[in-house]
Amino acid sequence: MSENIYVGVDLGGTAIKVGICNEEGHLLQKYEGPTETAKGVDTVIDNIEKYVRHIVEESPYSWDQLAGVGAGFAGFTNIREGIIILAPNVGFKDVPIRALLEERLGKPVKIDNDANVAALGEAWSGAGRGVENCVCYTLGTGVGGGIIVNGKIYQGFGGMAGELGHISVVPDLEAIQCGCGEMGCLETVSSATGIIRMAKDAVERGDRTSLAHVESIAAKEVFDAAKAGDEVAIRIVNRAAYYLGKSMAAVAAVLNPEAFIIGGGVSKAGDILFNEVRAVFAKLTPEPLQRGVRIVPAELGNDAGVVGAAGLHLRS
Amino acid sequence: MSENIYVGVDLGGTAIKVGICNEEGHLLQKYEGPTETAKGVDTVIDNIEKYVRHIVEESPYSWDQLAGVGAGFAGFTNIREGIIILAPNVGFKDVPIRALLEERLGKPVKIDNDANVAALGEAWSGAGRGVENCVCYTLGTGVGGGIIVNGKIYQGFGGMAGELGHISVVPDLEAIQCGCGEMGCLETVSSATGIIRMAKDAVERGDRTSLAHVESIAAKEVFDAAKAGDEVAIRIVNRAAYYLGKSMAAVAAVLNPEAFIIGGGVSKAGDILFNEVRAVFAKLTPEPLQRGVRIVPAELGNDAGVVGAAGLHLRS
Repeated sequence: MSENIYVGVDLGGTAIKVGICNEEGHLLQKYEGPTETAKGVDTVIDNIEKYVRHIVEESPYSWDQLAGVGAGFAGFTNIREGIIILAPNVGFKDVPIRALLEERLGKPVKIDNDANVAALGEAWSGAGRGVENCVCYTLGTGVGGGIIVNGKIYQGFGGMAGELGHISVVPDLEAIQCGCGEMGCLETVSSATGIIRMAKDAVERGDRTSLAHVESIAAKEVFDAAKAGDEVAIRIVNRAAYYLGKSMAAVAAVLNPEAFIIGGGVSKAGDILFNEVRAVFAKLTPEPLQRGVRIVPAELGNDAGVVGAAGLHLRS
Repeated sequence: MSENIYVGVDLGGTAIKVGICNEEGHLLQKYEGPTETAKGVDTVIDNIEKYVRHIVEESPYSWDQLAGVGAGFAGFTNIREGIIILAPNVGFKDVPIRALLEERLGKPVKIDNDANVAALGEAWSGAGRGVENCVCYTLGTGVGGGIIVNGKIYQGFGGMAGELGHISVVPDLEAIQCGCGEMGCLETVSSATGIIRMAKDAVERGDRTSLAHVESIAAKEVFDAAKAGDEVAIRIVNRAAYYLGKSMAAVAAVLNPEAFIIGGGVSKAGDILFNEVRAVFAKLTPEPLQRGVRIVPAELGNDAGVVGAAGLHLRS
């Protein structure tokens, strides 16, 4: 076993996940431990070092085989300089994480944000294996995105490419304001937050729906109700799917990707979401731009972050 | 003068333009002759060969210095195979132009469509000089586009990337059907055709406008009337600008380009168009996605085609 290995780090507010990948993007081993965010930046960095050393020690690979470490996290980064500008869930502000980790580990380190890293994970060894150009949506609390061009993360001018949640898709008359300040962003309707909001609005205005009897509505309850035939829930899921499909039609006109990969909690809705998204995309996209294009669920689930982070040295 | 040169060919229905560029994208010499479309494919190919040989012979460069020939034209292509699938304005259908020209010239040949080639010309040595990632709109009879990623043309999965005219931007209630079959495409409002249609509609329904006295309305008349203060014309120009800016907000969320470059006949409207486009883009785009982003007119005018075609060997 003389091959190179890469360790990916998925830095979350509660847990730090680490994983070993080989050069083909296969996840060989994984491990996780607490972040201990409350103890401050130094402890978090200590923990990252500890878990990275631990997983390699427990593996059949030697430390010398470790060719690089990658880390992904939710927040704003200066990728070129390797600085986390702001990562609220781990309390990092202007932390030169690349330099800190390179000094401790003696290995090259790369960082990127969670949406890009997840996209790379899927492109490298998930639903986008073998695809040169694809676009990944992560439908969670918000809507994140990552653009893969020629197998690599495409960053854009200010490192802001793939902000798919902020494509404006909802017409003025029914648009609400997004957290970014603009009106009608995709994120306002196709995120878990958007779905929950639509469900609560429906209950509040007295629509006849089984959701009225749910104490605390999460996106999953809306999908379950829709699957059980609740018409209000179906309307909400269709609305989330409609605007997702509409945004994809716009992305297709710009990038003509080979595949759209949809991950994140909302994607777990399954066929009830995907069938509608595919139908809307087919309806709203000129035929040459949809020829051969696939819309598929992400495959790696929670592992996309560590796999993509491990891939930063080869694919960014 | 031992440097390499490249000849670009801009194949139009009436004229074939050829130009010599050096490796930095400077247009050193140009020449044009009639296409003679009516005489058939063989004559057109003969003419391309003749004009390419002629311009090199008349130049201070030797035939040996010619490192490659590129050709751009309006129509559908199979870029990898070098085949013009359909180019109505020169009557080409399934013409293996790359193979034909390589045999006649004994030089490597590359082809691409006019919008991509114009985008590359601007990126290489026009308004996008020094810019890694930019998006070019060509506002003519239709709305074409080209995406430049890392200095090169980005083709997409089926070679259809940059179909910016087919981003749907007009809300349902006021959308009309586009030639592509979809509703509300950018091309229906921000092309010369769209502007003329809006002007004719205004005249027909009796709006009070100086355009009512224009015999045959072209886009230029609408811009001239707007500059002279005609309120109907101003409304039409603003509408074209609004949807162009709206489409750019969507493109920015996907690609976060450094620059938008606007060329084609409609871009000649100048400030009256650009000021409004910039204002709309600023209003509809989240702040981080517009930071440092420039919206600028194309610089090469009719030369963009030959320059970009010459650049195909270095930048595609």
